[in-house]
Amino acid sequence: MAHSVKEIAAALGAEAFGAVDLLMDSAAEPAAAGPRDLALAMTPAYENALAQGQARAAVVWPGADWQALGLEAAIIAPRARLAMSGLTQLLDQPLPGSGISQFAAIDPSAQIGANAVIGAFSVIGAGAVIGDECWIGDHVTIAAGVKVGSGCTLHAGVRLQRHVTLGHGVCLHPNVVVGGDGFSFVTAEPSNVEKARETLGEVDMQPPTDPTWYRIHSLGGVSIGDDVEIGANSCIDAGTIRATRIGQGTKIDSLVQVGHNVIVGEHCLLCAQAGVAGSTVIGDRVVVGGKAGVADNLIVGDDVVLGGAAVVLSNVPKGRMMMGYPATKMKTHIEGYKALRRLPRVLRDLAKR
Amino acid sequence: MAHSVKEIAAALGAEAFGAVDLLMDSAAEPAAAGPRDLALAMTPAYENALAQGQARAAVVWPGADWQALGLEAAIIAPRARLAMSGLTQLLDQPLPGSGISQFAAIDPSAQIGANAVIGAFSVIGAGAVIGDECWIGDHVTIAAGVKVGSGCTLHAGVRLQRHVTLGHGVCLHPNVVVGGDGFSFVTAEPSNVEKARETLGEVDMQPPTDPTWYRIHSLGGVSIGDDVEIGANSCIDAGTIRATRIGQGTKIDSLVQVGHNVIVGEHCLLCAQAGVAGSTVIGDRVVVGGKAGVADNLIVGDDVVLGGAAVVLSNVPKGRMMMGYPATKMKTHIEGYKALRRLPRVLRDLAKR
Amino acid sequence: MAHSVKEIAAALGAEAFGAVDLLMDSAAEPAAAGPRDLALAMTPAYENALAQGQARAAVVWPGADWQALGLEAAIIAPRARLAMSGLTQLLDQPLPGSGISQFAAIDPSAQIGANAVIGAFSVIGAGAVIGDECWIGDHVTIAAGVKVGSGCTLHAGVRLQRHVTLGHGVCLHPNVVVGGDGFSFVTAEPSNVEKARETLGEVDMQPPTDPTWYRIHSLGGVSIGDDVEIGANSCIDAGTIRATRIGQGTKIDSLVQVGHNVIVGEHCLLCAQAGVAGSTVIGDRVVVGGKAGVADNLIVGDDVVLGGAAVVLSNVPKGRMMMGYPATKMKTHIEGYKALRRLPRVLRDLAKR
Repeated sequence: MAHSVKEIAAALGAEAFGAVDLLMDSAAEPAAAGPRDLALAMTPAYENALAQGQARAAVVWPGADWQALGLEAAIIAPRARLAMSGLTQLLDQPLPGSGISQFAAIDPSAQIGANAVIGAFSVIGAGAVIGDECWIGDHVTIAAGVKVGSGCTLHAGVRLQRHVTLGHGVCLHPNVVVGGDGFSFVTAEPSNVEKARETLGEVDMQPPTDPTWYRIHSLGGVSIGDDVEIGANSCIDAGTIRATRIGQGTKIDSLVQVGHNVIVGEHCLLCAQAGVAGSTVIGDRVVVGGKAGVADNLIVGDDVVLGGAAVVLSNVPKGRMMMGYPATKMKTHIEGYKALRRLPRVLRDLAKR
Repeated sequence: MAHSVKEIAAALGAEAFGAVDLLMDSAAEPAAAGPRDLALAMTPAYENALAQGQARAAVVWPGADWQALGLEAAIIAPRARLAMSGLTQLLDQPLPGSGISQFAAIDPSAQIGANAVIGAFSVIGAGAVIGDECWIGDHVTIAAGVKVGSGCTLHAGVRLQRHVTLGHGVCLHPNVVVGGDGFSFVTAEPSNVEKARETLGEVDMQPPTDPTWYRIHSLGGVSIGDDVEIGANSCIDAGTIRATRIGQGTKIDSLVQVGHNVIVGEHCLLCAQAGVAGSTVIGDRVVVGGKAGVADNLIVGDDVVLGGAAVVLSNVPKGRMMMGYPATKMKTHIEGYKALRRLPRVLRDLAKR
Repeated sequence: MAHSVKEIAAALGAEAFGAVDLLMDSAAEPAAAGPRDLALAMTPAYENALAQGQARAAVVWPGADWQALGLEAAIIAPRARLAMSGLTQLLDQPLPGSGISQFAAIDPSAQIGANAVIGAFSVIGAGAVIGDECWIGDHVTIAAGVKVGSGCTLHAGVRLQRHVTLGHGVCLHPNVVVGGDGFSFVTAEPSNVEKARETLGEVDMQPPTDPTWYRIHSLGGVSIGDDVEIGANSCIDAGTIRATRIGQGTKIDSLVQVGHNVIVGEHCLLCAQAGVAGSTVIGDRVVVGGKAGVADNLIVGDDVVLGGAAVVLSNVPKGRMMMGYPATKMKTHIEGYKALRRLPRVLRDLAKR
């Protein structure tokens, strides 16, 4: 669907200049833009690329001389990335499909809300409740008794296991698993893991008399807040006797692991391949960088930022920026890293003294 | 189903005190417990929480004065986490369903054991053998010729590829993939990886004449021992000309990768996001911490404990506790880490001399 | 299907000796080989193992005295791993099935190429185009409008989301997700991540006025080149306004994450659990080791080799071999590591002066 430059600017809360009635079909990078693509040239770095493309209109940086750039119309957005949010939403197409596929297997006791879309070969178990305006793709598995709020999007291959509750407006990408059993096992005698923590590895581990790992069952399920989004192939494990919880507004990337009993606060960001081990509590507005990990039974305060691949092995006070393995304050990490870079030469010099 | 305090204590092999005929529906954390929930207050840290909840009965720590805590009945368990295993098993509900779904696609030549449950839209290929008492969820794919032992649980979206054999009592969580092709490719001339290992990176890599990666096919499949459990979205790759093997009693968490030809011993624990690269041999009772990795073609001895995020780049003798990147003995790692923390100040002091 | 030693050698471009008409059913490790298994004894290390098995023929190392090893026939291959490629291909069996399953749900407007195999419960959306000779397993989801080239193999549970294009000869292992939404969110005011990068963590983070993460939609899809292979449970995220791209001949292992807008060059190797964050550009013939990560918006040059678990936080010039966290040249990393190992003693000595 085409939108005029004027309409687009209004939707973004931004100002439009020039031939504001030009119609745009989609957005494009400046060099690849055709005459009906709105070029996204939000920094001066794109100046040359604009000339390579065929854009007649563009979103440009504050202060840009759009006429000199050869444009007929321009939108100026004060915070470029925020404008991207509104713009891509405007240009996105709704997910396809309507109604309930003839190939879905829905238990007669399940409650399906108004205007729900349910794809082919999806399964909805006994007593499950699906809210209004949900879009459920193909091959989705929803266990008996699960509750899904209104306006949720569940892409193909999502698995919701027993005792799972989703709030409103939750978006789960393909093959997300919510409510798989927690990884909770115990040995009859104290295990080598317990011994290693006690002895700090001073003593070599010996074979236990009974090596069996006895399973602690997961009875607590998972509770996901409103407006949470979870990326492809991520896992949120079920709690032991209470729910694992993800706070409202939190966004989780692909291939992320959230262990049993974990509590993640509101408006957090967990980037790809991050992991949070069992029973750890993550505050509100925490950012966990890609591949970062937090060990079990820890507390991470509000507004903490964990850098990519940071490995947190102890509690983190609120507001800290952490890096490294084990993770320390960013400043400490950088000092240590710089010192290490100088160390080989320092040792050579010391040897000469 | 309700159980009396007396029954629960008997099932746990623990002692019950007070009004042991009180009926309990489920277990709960002390602060959230209702009158028919057995509160789990296994350490003195829960004393205040018990007062906040409405529990009439609880599992308490050895030596607790349960009457003074306001309880009518109590169970005292000498090893709390072990008691959790029995207790959660007792309170867990069996997985739903019975018989074979009318929506399953089962090849006529497949053999299905007695009392097997098979969910909707599951596929069982030609000549596959499914043992007695198996519970197979929805959307499971079992390739032709696969053998599944008795009493196995396969959750939704599990994929068993060609040449896979499961023992008895195996539990696979949603979207587990067993028997995907190994990641095994070769270049016509020695590749840059081979050169980098030889030159230790002293020489910059040059483009090869033929950059094609030729595929080594995976003919060996996977063999999984009895009582193995594998977490959601984990992958066990097929071996080249013999099976990749997971020993009996080993437990694997979510998002774990086990490469082709790997042999994992018995009663191991592989925590979330761990990875074991091709052809490595892991001994018995080894614990691999979350996010830890073991490089290819190595040997890790029995009873080794690898800390979270440890990266193992050489063989590990039995019984060692290892940490760091590259992984070293825990003691060496901690010494090095402490020294590094002091280093910036030491360098500043040296500069002043 | 049985092959003679002579035929196998011809297929490998290698020389055969002795009773070259012996028929072989499959390949095996020397110690496990039966009389109709071709033993793979490509280095002298297998000499004793050959004696333990029953092999009558083997692939042996250059210079081996095959008759003294008790063999009746032998193949001598100059580059053993390359021979493995041809040999395993020869012995592999074709994937089963033919035609389109009666249980597949194919939109009438989809175009299905000649000789395509489509498994049970697979879904192909409106307007999708599937090339000739494709093999599509069970439970595969192909969104409306997706284009799949000829000769592709899509294993069970693969999800191709909107705006995805696959070249020819692409192989996707079970539960691979291509085209899930990119992880792209923005706050109304500069976020704590932006602040942390500016202040380098010197200042503790404060709660923002509006903590909401606004979603940037993914309109660009994914474009996958010819002969790309992607391992089980890996994710390639959709680009924002242009496609995320994987170059031809690139091979990707299991549980790998490729973020939105990323460009991966040709003939790269991305090993298990590797991750490439948004908008990063990876050159041609780059090898990314297992668990290695590359941060967002970086450039990694051609022919770079990243060691296992390396964490790249800045651009990498072409041809470099990198290790560590943060990743540095391999030589720098090893020097630093060795110096760190010596450091505790050096500090003790300094303290004594």
